[in-house]
Amino acid sequence: MVMRMSTLFLRTLREDPVDAEVVSHKLLVRAGYVRRAAPGIYSWLPLGYRVLRKVEQIVREEMDAIGAQEVHFPALLPREPYEATNRWTEYGPNLFRVKDRKEGDYLLGPTHEEMFTLLVKDLYSSYKDLPLSLYQIQTKYRDEQRPRAGILRGREFVMKDSYSFDISDEAFKASYDAHRAAYIKIFDRLGLDYVIVAAMSGAMGGSASEEFLANAASGEDTYVRSPGGYAANVEAVVTPVPPPVPYDDAPEAHVEDTPDTPTIETLVGHLNERFPRVDRPWSAADTLKNVLVMLRHPDGTREPLAIGVPGDREIDEKRLTAQVEPATVEPFGDDDFRAHPLLAKGYIGPGVLGEKNASGIRFLVDPRVVDGTRWVTGADQAGRHVLDLVAGRDFTPDGTIEAAEVRAGDPAPDGSGPLELARGIEMGHIFQLGRKYSEALGLQVLDENGKLVTVTMGSYGVGVSRAVAAIVENSHDEQGIVWPREVSPADVHLVATGKDEAVFAAAGELADELERSGVTVLYDDRRGVSPGVKFKDSELVGVPTIVVVGRGLADGLVEVKDRRTGERTEIPLAEAVGHLRSVVLRS
Amino acid sequence: MVMRMSTLFLRTLREDPVDAEVVSHKLLVRAGYVRRAAPGIYSWLPLGYRVLRKVEQIVREEMDAIGAQEVHFPALLPREPYEATNRWTEYGPNLFRVKDRKEGDYLLGPTHEEMFTLLVKDLYSSYKDLPLSLYQIQTKYRDEQRPRAGILRGREFVMKDSYSFDISDEAFKASYDAHRAAYIKIFDRLGLDYVIVAAMSGAMGGSASEEFLANAASGEDTYVRSPGGYAANVEAVVTPVPPPVPYDDAPEAHVEDTPDTPTIETLVGHLNERFPRVDRPWSAADTLKNVLVMLRHPDGTREPLAIGVPGDREIDEKRLTAQVEPATVEPFGDDDFRAHPLLAKGYIGPGVLGEKNASGIRFLVDPRVVDGTRWVTGADQAGRHVLDLVAGRDFTPDGTIEAAEVRAGDPAPDGSGPLELARGIEMGHIFQLGRKYSEALGLQVLDENGKLVTVTMGSYGVGVSRAVAAIVENSHDEQGIVWPREVSPADVHLVATGKDEAVFAAAGELADELERSGVTVLYDDRRGVSPGVKFKDSELVGVPTIVVVGRGLADGLVEVKDRRTGERTEIPLAEAVGHLRSVVLRS
Repeated sequence: MVMRMSTLFLRTLREDPVDAEVVSHKLLVRAGYVRRAAPGIYSWLPLGYRVLRKVEQIVREEMDAIGAQEVHFPALLPREPYEATNRWTEYGPNLFRVKDRKEGDYLLGPTHEEMFTLLVKDLYSSYKDLPLSLYQIQTKYRDEQRPRAGILRGREFVMKDSYSFDISDEAFKASYDAHRAAYIKIFDRLGLDYVIVAAMSGAMGGSASEEFLANAASGEDTYVRSPGGYAANVEAVVTPVPPPVPYDDAPEAHVEDTPDTPTIETLVGHLNERFPRVDRPWSAADTLKNVLVMLRHPDGTREPLAIGVPGDREIDEKRLTAQVEPATVEPFGDDDFRAHPLLAKGYIGPGVLGEKNASGIRFLVDPRVVDGTRWVTGADQAGRHVLDLVAGRDFTPDGTIEAAEVRAGDPAPDGSGPLELARGIEMGHIFQLGRKYSEALGLQVLDENGKLVTVTMGSYGVGVSRAVAAIVENSHDEQGIVWPREVSPADVHLVATGKDEAVFAAAGELADELERSGVTVLYDDRRGVSPGVKFKDSELVGVPTIVVVGRGLADGLVEVKDRRTGERTEIPLAEAVGHLRSVVLRS
Repeated sequence: MVMRMSTLFLRTLREDPVDAEVVSHKLLVRAGYVRRAAPGIYSWLPLGYRVLRKVEQIVREEMDAIGAQEVHFPALLPREPYEATNRWTEYGPNLFRVKDRKEGDYLLGPTHEEMFTLLVKDLYSSYKDLPLSLYQIQTKYRDEQRPRAGILRGREFVMKDSYSFDISDEAFKASYDAHRAAYIKIFDRLGLDYVIVAAMSGAMGGSASEEFLANAASGEDTYVRSPGGYAANVEAVVTPVPPPVPYDDAPEAHVEDTPDTPTIETLVGHLNERFPRVDRPWSAADTLKNVLVMLRHPDGTREPLAIGVPGDREIDEKRLTAQVEPATVEPFGDDDFRAHPLLAKGYIGPGVLGEKNASGIRFLVDPRVVDGTRWVTGADQAGRHVLDLVAGRDFTPDGTIEAAEVRAGDPAPDGSGPLELARGIEMGHIFQLGRKYSEALGLQVLDENGKLVTVTMGSYGVGVSRAVAAIVENSHDEQGIVWPREVSPADVHLVATGKDEAVFAAAGELADELERSGVTVLYDDRRGVSPGVKFKDSELVGVPTIVVVGRGLADGLVEVKDRRTGERTEIPLAEAVGHLRSVVLRS
């Protein structure tokens, strides 16, 4: 059915919404695709819902193609299964919790691992039933602390989540690979500019995972890539560990007065002034910075943690968070310092840190702090530092942690060259869950020998509503959205200009003919609206092919404009249907 | 794509689920369409989700056909708009309320009047923008006190809700009629056996409404119909008011001792024994029964209410509830009697009731209690009744109320004959909202004269997930479900029997050919499953056409069975595709 703008529930806006930070948010609201209902919660207007359903359909087709079967779970879920896997607690304030009239505990599902596991347990019992992949396209909830960026990160959103069930880790590999291949097809069809990166699996549990990131400066995920093809989410980057350094001829550690040097900068200045080196000046990289944080565990308890990193690197909060999950990271406050009087703020050193040491505070260091490396670090007294402190000789940390920032130029862990940093939007995530959920919920089947085997699971997500925004991030210009053809709300945006009724008659007929031939049409049939406003709206709305019926009609011509390139061609009205069909089908 | 039962996520069950009361619940679970996740909350399995989506598509097509535009609102909604219309309170415990991490109040939408009103207010401002009809097919929540009957009455369910916006009540009429016509098409296509009845509008507000009820003994709605074509939900039945009775020659009221007569039955017995009448014996219809209830108002306050009905009729709780909405009805307990010592339990009479009377308790009577009618009723003292008490002479109630039960044989209010009672499932509801929501939320547009006019709204619902169950209620037999063709999960259920590989080869080829020719196939390709089990499963699952490839194949024949009639025909395999195409397309 032709969508006529004279009656379409659409009002384009000239002003960006005040709360909009990213371009997709601005354009989707201005072009009348979505409308905010509450923070992080959006309504889909007619054009927007069409795009959303097209994205859903692409995802559905590619999931069906790998034999995944569509089901549909409720969003309102009982607490018990999430209690069994501890996610009721682990999710913390990100989970919307609901009480029913009988004070029963429910939640709004953020993902459905538990429910799928229980459903399969409910119906299946033999290795002959496997492999199995189930999926749903469903509304999810996550109570984000700072919902932002419109539908890029909402609190209610549409996700495709699927789950694979296999008899063994080897068999799982095929399910994983099938999903990976399907995801490539999906994101190709969505017209996204994306990369596949190694990733941490986060609160999902499990061991191996990859993310599909749409390249976008507005993305919340930072990833790295090397010239040799390495790519990873920054949380997943593993620091290459240098070989140990011989330290037989290293001088003994010695404590020096370093008054007023609570920062790395002041310390390095002091070292170069008072202890100048012959070969090269002291730099931040020679110092070991010991940072204190508090971990908040899911059960509410707090635990202090000391992290030692080379002084030229900051702690990357996201990398640290990924390492300590499900605990969260809180600042180590003044009260905490008072509770640990051995810690000399600004001059903290390994002398008191570590579980075997005076403070009893767990002490993890950057993987670069290998045995034999020599450091300047705090001497645990205000105004004093220790020099020539050798790791492995003078102190032994409790372990290592990947918490230091990753910097452009760092070596890729696989030796494929220096890393480059980029930003992306997480569009898909595939990961091996292993047996975390099947063990917690008792999903076992009988194997060929009649023995009970715990099922190996995989979990796979696509951000369906987010994809609509990511596509806009990837595909727009100054004037508005430029939809890839497969997800455009219409194939053709037909604009009738002027006041001549003959123009509207011809355009109306063309619109009907196009629809009959399978080309969907958004028809701007508004009277009394200037051509300028109509052209502006057509650029903003972003249908890839714009057809103008106007003054040229006197000569039997209409104009066809490519929204992306701006290229215009005049063609005879009589050939318009055939021409447009070929344009639509060709792309 | 052919659905193969060897890999389909489906396990039919021989036993009814223990909590199942109605046949659709039993069959949908046993045939593997849905599975319970929590009380009143269901998951859709692959076959069930296919049926659900087919129902959705029928609803979508018919809504599109009347020019309604599809949008999609969130399910998680902010409190404020529902506060403005008072529904935040009025919905009481039926509403799922949610707090977010910032202690903000949200709800899970039961219907979306407020959100649609605000959206239209947001974008539209002129009479030229109207009429407008918007709809969504969306997940809704209602915290039912007794979720029962599987997906017939769930706590999470799928509904199509639409809303019309018109400049005037006259213009609204066309929107209402268009929806009514679309609903007739929808329920016809769904193959439902349904009636359209006059209805109360309930908590929605507004004045005129009709319900579409699927006839089913398991239905929760009772409706009435007359030979002359009157049909109404029992809540909406208006009692024909008899003319006043002259009472000039009526004897004076007199109080009599009636010891041990706290019930109507004992009272009537006593009257016939002690005060026998010449013309006819006393019956329950001669007595006026005064029933006390407590109303609980949305703000939590309680108010006593006395209702006087002829002693031969019970109070119908649903009719009473519909009358007092948004208040709810609670029992008048012993504590309440203690708080009102004037009320003599079992012997309550109009002597103390009514706002102008001693008790100050509001007193409403059945519409049959017209002036001049003569009653035996309580004398407000234990063991005593008053006789010859004349309405309008001896007592004046505060008004009337439609709270007495409707009985088969009662006259239709329009004079179209005696009423018959039947039960149905509410499948659709269309109603005039008037200006309740547009006034509360300030939805006004400029009319032709530049004057602000409050918009007239209509609200229209279809129970989409409920329809799946209602169809089963209407269409099943002892063996299982019998799907109407338009909503069946497949066009053909193809069964290969025996162990002969040639049979499976021929059946597999037939399945592929059918799919290529546009006929969808559920193919039972399971090995090692007996023909008896396969036939039983095919009857249970309910695809309207069953094709058996088995022993007949040796003679080049396959069997085609009509699920509904049981009729079987043998046809040559070579003609099967053509034959089945014609069967599928013809129906």
